[in-house]
Amino acid sequence: MSYNTFGREFRFTTWGESHGPALGATVDGTPPGVPLSEEFIQQFLDRRRPGTSKHTTQRKEPDQVRILSGVFEGRTTGTPIQLMIENTDQRSKDYGEIATSFRPGHADISYHLKYGLRDYRGGGRSSARETAARVAAGGVAQAVLAHLLPELKITGYMVQMGEMHLDRARFDPQAISGNPFFLPDATAVQAWSDYLDGIRKSRNSVGAALEVLIQGCPAGLGAPVYAKLDTDLAAAMMSINAVKGVEIGEGMAAAALTGTENADEIRMGPDGPQFLSNHAGGILGGISTGQDIAVRFSVKPTSSITTPRKTINQHGQEVDLITKGRHDPCVGIRAVPVAEAMAACVLLDHLMMDRAQTGGKRGEIG
Amino acid sequence: MSYNTFGREFRFTTWGESHGPALGATVDGTPPGVPLSEEFIQQFLDRRRPGTSKHTTQRKEPDQVRILSGVFEGRTTGTPIQLMIENTDQRSKDYGEIATSFRPGHADISYHLKYGLRDYRGGGRSSARETAARVAAGGVAQAVLAHLLPELKITGYMVQMGEMHLDRARFDPQAISGNPFFLPDATAVQAWSDYLDGIRKSRNSVGAALEVLIQGCPAGLGAPVYAKLDTDLAAAMMSINAVKGVEIGEGMAAAALTGTENADEIRMGPDGPQFLSNHAGGILGGISTGQDIAVRFSVKPTSSITTPRKTINQHGQEVDLITKGRHDPCVGIRAVPVAEAMAACVLLDHLMMDRAQTGGKRGEIG
Amino acid sequence: MSYNTFGREFRFTTWGESHGPALGATVDGTPPGVPLSEEFIQQFLDRRRPGTSKHTTQRKEPDQVRILSGVFEGRTTGTPIQLMIENTDQRSKDYGEIATSFRPGHADISYHLKYGLRDYRGGGRSSARETAARVAAGGVAQAVLAHLLPELKITGYMVQMGEMHLDRARFDPQAISGNPFFLPDATAVQAWSDYLDGIRKSRNSVGAALEVLIQGCPAGLGAPVYAKLDTDLAAAMMSINAVKGVEIGEGMAAAALTGTENADEIRMGPDGPQFLSNHAGGILGGISTGQDIAVRFSVKPTSSITTPRKTINQHGQEVDLITKGRHDPCVGIRAVPVAEAMAACVLLDHLMMDRAQTGGKRGEIG
Amino acid sequence: MSYNTFGREFRFTTWGESHGPALGATVDGTPPGVPLSEEFIQQFLDRRRPGTSKHTTQRKEPDQVRILSGVFEGRTTGTPIQLMIENTDQRSKDYGEIATSFRPGHADISYHLKYGLRDYRGGGRSSARETAARVAAGGVAQAVLAHLLPELKITGYMVQMGEMHLDRARFDPQAISGNPFFLPDATAVQAWSDYLDGIRKSRNSVGAALEVLIQGCPAGLGAPVYAKLDTDLAAAMMSINAVKGVEIGEGMAAAALTGTENADEIRMGPDGPQFLSNHAGGILGGISTGQDIAVRFSVKPTSSITTPRKTINQHGQEVDLITKGRHDPCVGIRAVPVAEAMAACVLLDHLMMDRAQTGGKRGEIG
Repeated sequence: MSYNTFGREFRFTTWGESHGPALGATVDGTPPGVPLSEEFIQQFLDRRRPGTSKHTTQRKEPDQVRILSGVFEGRTTGTPIQLMIENTDQRSKDYGEIATSFRPGHADISYHLKYGLRDYRGGGRSSARETAARVAAGGVAQAVLAHLLPELKITGYMVQMGEMHLDRARFDPQAISGNPFFLPDATAVQAWSDYLDGIRKSRNSVGAALEVLIQGCPAGLGAPVYAKLDTDLAAAMMSINAVKGVEIGEGMAAAALTGTENADEIRMGPDGPQFLSNHAGGILGGISTGQDIAVRFSVKPTSSITTPRKTINQHGQEVDLITKGRHDPCVGIRAVPVAEAMAACVLLDHLMMDRAQTGGKRGEIG
Repeated sequence: MSYNTFGREFRFTTWGESHGPALGATVDGTPPGVPLSEEFIQQFLDRRRPGTSKHTTQRKEPDQVRILSGVFEGRTTGTPIQLMIENTDQRSKDYGEIATSFRPGHADISYHLKYGLRDYRGGGRSSARETAARVAAGGVAQAVLAHLLPELKITGYMVQMGEMHLDRARFDPQAISGNPFFLPDATAVQAWSDYLDGIRKSRNSVGAALEVLIQGCPAGLGAPVYAKLDTDLAAAMMSINAVKGVEIGEGMAAAALTGTENADEIRMGPDGPQFLSNHAGGILGGISTGQDIAVRFSVKPTSSITTPRKTINQHGQEVDLITKGRHDPCVGIRAVPVAEAMAACVLLDHLMMDRAQTGGKRGEIG
Repeated sequence: MSYNTFGREFRFTTWGESHGPALGATVDGTPPGVPLSEEFIQQFLDRRRPGTSKHTTQRKEPDQVRILSGVFEGRTTGTPIQLMIENTDQRSKDYGEIATSFRPGHADISYHLKYGLRDYRGGGRSSARETAARVAAGGVAQAVLAHLLPELKITGYMVQMGEMHLDRARFDPQAISGNPFFLPDATAVQAWSDYLDGIRKSRNSVGAALEVLIQGCPAGLGAPVYAKLDTDLAAAMMSINAVKGVEIGEGMAAAALTGTENADEIRMGPDGPQFLSNHAGGILGGISTGQDIAVRFSVKPTSSITTPRKTINQHGQEVDLITKGRHDPCVGIRAVPVAEAMAACVLLDHLMMDRAQTGGKRGEIG
Repeated sequence: MSYNTFGREFRFTTWGESHGPALGATVDGTPPGVPLSEEFIQQFLDRRRPGTSKHTTQRKEPDQVRILSGVFEGRTTGTPIQLMIENTDQRSKDYGEIATSFRPGHADISYHLKYGLRDYRGGGRSSARETAARVAAGGVAQAVLAHLLPELKITGYMVQMGEMHLDRARFDPQAISGNPFFLPDATAVQAWSDYLDGIRKSRNSVGAALEVLIQGCPAGLGAPVYAKLDTDLAAAMMSINAVKGVEIGEGMAAAALTGTENADEIRMGPDGPQFLSNHAGGILGGISTGQDIAVRFSVKPTSSITTPRKTINQHGQEVDLITKGRHDPCVGIRAVPVAEAMAACVLLDHLMMDRAQTGGKRGEIG
């Protein structure tokens, strides 16, 4: 069994290799009658696109999405939506020399061992280029959520890049779209930029930590016990290339807390229950409470670096390898729109799961 | 859609509430001809059982498992295996007063909002008692793995409990089974015990961090891109009650690393590729490399504490609540056998997925 | 992969062997708040129970169902419902002699070849006894349908038994429950009874054809193109032991029709579209139209007969085999409540699928 | 939930509408290392292509398949295979007048009721054009089966068209590819041709019955009890447009048989068990026995006919409708390669399911 499909009710299957003719997503389960256009989806792809600043790979990919099915006269029909992005700038010659050697930290060796062969052009299927297809699928989810849950808001941003940390006291969501780091603090952009320049010039790369904040999520989403909302969000983030850790609410820090510190006490607010804190990250027992949901995750440093590293090749020979080509010094940056897309897909999936089982009715309080 | 099933090829569905007549797991997909007995499964349940030390709830549950189907003359038949554990010590009177109030930090309020009603006896379905069924299912997975992959070894242990941290320089796997904390350092047991006594006496509880070490895992397990081995391990751990963060390899710390630090270089060893480090935690591109796999996760402090907390009840009234009854001051302790069970199920599932697609053949090197 | 689970949103997994300690169904996805009791489910099991007339096996099984989880204070909680039926009359000695020989027409040989071993007691998992668990699961579906779609009516009956055919001009639904054949024609019962007596006395068995009529099904159920409502109904019926053919509407006879004969013309009725005929059997393009849905299927004659048949045993020796024990001369009879149960599960599953995708909204006409 | 995916291990998702820019199939789970080319898949599409004789629609579609992913240097990589067929001859003007009226016997009305809108151009998603994507996916399955099970042979043919019936005494598999009816009797081709000409000239259409014969299938495929091999074959065939009935082995005729007639007796042959007859159609208890598997199904007459029929439109007005455009007088003809494709997919899926669970080992006899 291979498994290139994500989701239960709202499902997408991504396909395509880094240097094949095209890649895309087959999206199934979309509610009918939702306004949807290529332009709407394109805005999400544009945020992820490489080549938009000196901090991301200079590979020029317009990443233009085409809708091949499932939309008629501007609205979804409820049938599968095929989203295709053609690969226009392939330059396969760049990758010729790593055809037989395994780049350290890359999936080259594990793909070879599992499948016996691999598409070595740009990492083939294991390339982060696959995430463009996720972003396209996420665009469909965003369109449906805008239709069904207009109050929902999903915001991704960076909170750490190597030694640089977001100062949460300066958190400003307005700043995010105004800088190449998706950084919610305009005052820190120059320092982050200088730091990353230094990393790049030293032929190195660096890791990152990101956060996705979900506001306006209704209570009651999540299917205990093996499709808890936090379980699915964790799986969604961990499935993104290079992600090594996922946290909900307090995350790993919960290990150090006591019960009195951690319990989110509850009072009655004007519109219902009001929590006095949010250590849980908006999810209890796998089900959303109506509070903000916070998901954090780490992205390891780009493996493709131009500093030589020890490795072997398919023939079992030991070699020193430099990965040429165009690579982001911090792949974490472009993971921001990807994480937002995955969060949107998870939320829509759970909204639909909940409609199926409960019809969307909520228990009353008071 | 509700979702109480875990796994793709090797699937189990858990059922049952904390204070219902019984709980259990329906296990489907087991290979035929594998030796299996109630005694074999029981040993895993015994490790998880409450009441075995002063540090876990004094609720007396023999947690005796019965195999109701799928095993004939001591071997699995390939048909569903029903594992049932009867609830013998229910004492439902203990829970009467929380029937209408929502315990802070508990799933009481989210279940009420989603389902409109809830089994308030002991937390019903949201109780950590559900994990007994996972451990039973994990016992089946362990039996199959012992049959198909005898070299595989899965070892869980605690690495943190509140302020107490494992000293990794003293890591001793032999020590784990000799103390109530699953602590791989016999010299620290007394200090951890004293610390937890203090927590309990102050009517409080505390969080924990655990690690599962998987040794002897063959290369090639993992199904990119949405059933990566690390994705599935993360989902497995995050689905356990009270878990708030999951890390593979470097985990969240990967955000601070550079590419030169993080790349696991490769040389040729006597039996094939040999990695010079293991920042990746044994998984590249979602596929196992043959190295040790390390999964870490945090467990929040027990929400049920006997210090009063502010909350509301179903009628919308504000109340102060003390959770009486018998509760572990650190639920993380008993999560160790649960995490081992989940890891066993994930590995078997992926072994079977891989058999389906590749027939278990591996690419050659050299 | 084994596959003992049926359904997508409303899912049940059956477990248990003919002569094990118990069998049952694990039902997941049930909407919360639905009234449900053991008594309600029991009425469906009682209709299927053996030993109720001389025409069904004299094995005495009370087939008493117990609800072990998922129901609290008389209502479903939305968590898994475990339904258990203990096997009380096992008489395993009856089956001793077929432990190594393969009964012709039975799954003995195919199970042996696939699994390498088999529970030979009463056919183990391949026994029609498994259908008791389906009927129990169907009882849950019936309870939910009564709650959500009170106008829906599912009626199963026999239309053929060997040489005997239902005279459709005499179709009387009131007659069905008044005779052991679920025959909708009271005037034919004696003839059918005499016919089956003759079959039994000649140490033989006979096939049957059944029909399930679904009335009051709303338009819009069915998920094209691989979960069409007719596809799922066909799979549901074909999965019942001994079924060899399934027909929707005109069925196999459609091969002989012309387009002018087959087209169901449409006019406007007082409540919307009104079809002038129903060759389609209530389903167009895999989606219900609101008309009556008719599903027909055949059941082969009982393989276990007391006339000696040529076969082989596990050692490759040729033997002549008589199947002793208590067997129905026409297994088709008891398939009636099973087919109703499967139809109920399919309809509820599709109702929930449709709620997830469309929210249950229907396109307008006029 | 929508459901445009077929299969469990070997899965394909079809997408695309009759008159959209393209349609195709996303195939996931393919074993790696299998030789595959566009030319190989094209041969199956060419057999299904319209416009190849006067008996099929004159719509000119080259139906040229492109492989966009999952194949590298002539072999499958184990990653998703995207198969795209561009729609070149759309002539959407032909369909303008049925934009608001519901063609009797078509899915127009059921799609409208379910989704609230529909792509009326050529039937949109409900068009039999979707089956081109199935045939492409089936081509991938055929390539893998040729690699893993070279002895397997899947042969589809017509057995009935309206009043014309195949004379089984004249069955000649060599004849199938030599006539436009996939008829295994060269001597009857002229009569069938004349018959269908008459149907067409009378502005009518006619139904058909087809059979798929599977030879060389190994024993042990099939996953009882809800993924029986016959269940999955039935679902596969019933999911094809216009199919109304499916039969395995004796099919509906089993209702008339007695147990002595129906039991397939067994002797020992030179290579193992040898059945003396095949009423079961090669499947017992849902598992293949190694005998030939025979699946038969009916296809209703084309609904689009040029004889006026009574119907209504979206505004609730009663109208008389003639379906102009180019339509096959017998859609059953082109269902032959579609049914072969579906059978190939089911068999590969089950081969992989079996590898996962049993590792492909078989129980011994003798």
